[in-house]
Order: sequence, then structure tokens, then C-alpha cells
Amino acid sequence: MTRILGIDPGSQRTGVGIIDVDEAGRATHVHNGALVLLGEGDFAARLKRLLVGLAEVIERWRPEEVAIEQVFMARNPDSALKLGQARGAALSAVVLRDLPVHEYAAREVKLAVVGKGGADKAQVQHMVGIMLNLHGKLQADAADALAIAITHAHVRATARRLGVGTRQAWSRK
Amino acid sequence: MTRILGIDPGSQRTGVGIIDVDEAGRATHVHNGALVLLGEGDFAARLKRLLVGLAEVIERWRPEEVAIEQVFMARNPDSALKLGQARGAALSAVVLRDLPVHEYAAREVKLAVVGKGGADKAQVQHMVGIMLNLHGKLQADAADALAIAITHAHVRATARRLGVGTRQAWSRK
Repeated sequence: MTRILGIDPGSQRTGVGIIDVDEAGRATHVHNGALVLLGEGDFAARLKRLLVGLAEVIERWRPEEVAIEQVFMARNPDSALKLGQARGAALSAVVLRDLPVHEYAAREVKLAVVGKGGADKAQVQHMVGIMLNLHGKLQADAADALAIAITHAHVRATARRLGVGTRQAWSRK
Repeated sequence: MTRILGIDPGSQRTGVGIIDVDEAGRATHVHNGALVLLGEGDFAARLKRLLVGLAEVIERWRPEEVAIEQVFMARNPDSALKLGQARGAALSAVVLRDLPVHEYAAREVKLAVVGKGGADKAQVQHMVGIMLNLHGKLQADAADALAIAITHAHVRATARRLGVGTRQAWSRK
């Protein structure tokens, strides 16, 4: 059994989702939630809340591997910068604990979860609920984070069957 | 006497500069250098080097206040994202130690150091060397980091004279 933390970084909310996955790639839901970056305090204070919040999630649930959404081209430089900062902080919390990080493009996540690279958010949310046997409405960022964790579970199960390694974040450069 | 750490975040190199400043705003050079993000390892490994490197600088020199360059509009979303990630990681190292962070636009830094908002890098480098009585060539990123620290020293000395607070990062939003 391996515990995977999926992270969906955002400049306003960062979704987190944790699953346990067995040797065959079957996933069980463990935890999901979202760290809110909006609200009280200046940016430094909000960034610290993200770092501390993510450190608490790691401390409490003790994931062994981490999967994070690869950022697609953002709409504009300003939003890319904000998203980059949130992503840099989220990755900081992870790398400080020496956890291996794997990265998946949104298209790969949709393909793994819905079977279509062009699926919409509602379909991803719906399928994550079915795959993890969750009843009741999942928060959108948490659902995305769980979807990223599921994608990594599939990829690592396939890689294991084929006897090849999984790809780590940015290692393709 | 107050010790100020200036940070010039970049996706390839992050400059750091430390000065001591007295009540009148007079600055003395303490340390300068650059953390290189290029080279060995995937992005997670490089990000960790930045975090650990900056933590070491803070641990060794014990700055009391931090000044960082406010990011102007980056050329394109891709470079903005990379810069944002480096900046998010640099800020993570700072906020984890609860140091106050102040932010200055490149134009403000040039105005404080050279007296012209449109000054070029070579002029900034030259003036930083004169102001801090440094002989020999300063590395460009380190010079920028020292210039940011000098800017904060000036702003806080002026704010002190006027009896107003200095502006903290992102507090204007």
C-alpha cells in the first residue's frame, strides 16, 4: 500500500487529496480538502498559511509520494506569476520533507480519470466521486487534487507492470 | 543598527545582499552572493537548494528585515510562472522564519540607488559599489540584491523621520 498526496495549486485555493493505492493500482480515499489563500493578512501571511497548512497535512497523513498538476499556459503573465508563487510555496513544503514529486498535465489527469483529455471540471468531479466511492458533493479543488493523485496511482501501477520508472517533476528538461 | 537582507529572485539565479543600517539610514556592507538554480537535478531538487541555501544565509547572518524585488510584468506567461515559483520558494524560506518582508518595484530601487527610475543595470552595479565602499567587481544579481536592501534602508529611514510605517509586501492590495 502506498499513500499518495495530490496537490492542485492555485493562487486563491490549493486543493489537497490523499489516497491509498495497492499494488494493482486500486485507490481508496483517505482525505481531501482545500487550503484557502484568500482572506486576512498580506501575501506573506497568506503564503505562510499555505506552507504551514500543507506541512500539517503531510505531518498528519504522512504521504509517501506527491503528485502535482503541471501548469498549463496561464492566461496572462500576472496570473502566471501569482500561480507560480503559490506553486513554489506548495513545492517548498513538499521538498523540505524530501518527498518525491511527480507532475501531470491537466490533459493527462482528465484522460486518466474521465477517459477524455478534453473533459470538463464537472465530469472530473463526478468520476472522482465514483472511483473513490464518495457520496455527497466534493469541493472542486479537492476533487482536482484527488484526480491528480489517482492519475499518479494509475501511472505508477502501469510503470510497475512494464518495469519502468515513473517520471519525476521537471525531469524531462 | 538593523540588518537587512535584500533578495533578487530569479528562475536561474537568486541574488542575496546583506547590509547593516544605522538610525540615520547609513548602510554598511555585510555579505553578498547568489544562489544558482541552474545545473544538476530536476526542478524539485533545484528548488530545495534555493530553500536550503536561503535558510543558511538567514541562519548565518540573522537579518531582521527582508526586502524583495516586486516583480514587474514578465515578458510572457511561461517566464512569469518560472519566476513566480522561484519567488514563492524564496518567500517561503523567509516567512517560515517570521521575518517581515517589504517589497519594492525595480523603478523604486533604481531611483533610490542611482536617482533615476530608468537607470540601467551597470549604473546600479556601479552605484552600489560606491555606496557600500566595495572594491572589485560585484556579481550582477548580488548587486541588485544589495540595491534592494539599500532601497529599504532609505525608505525606513525616511519613514522613521516622518513617523510613518514602512509598507509591507502586498499590503497595498
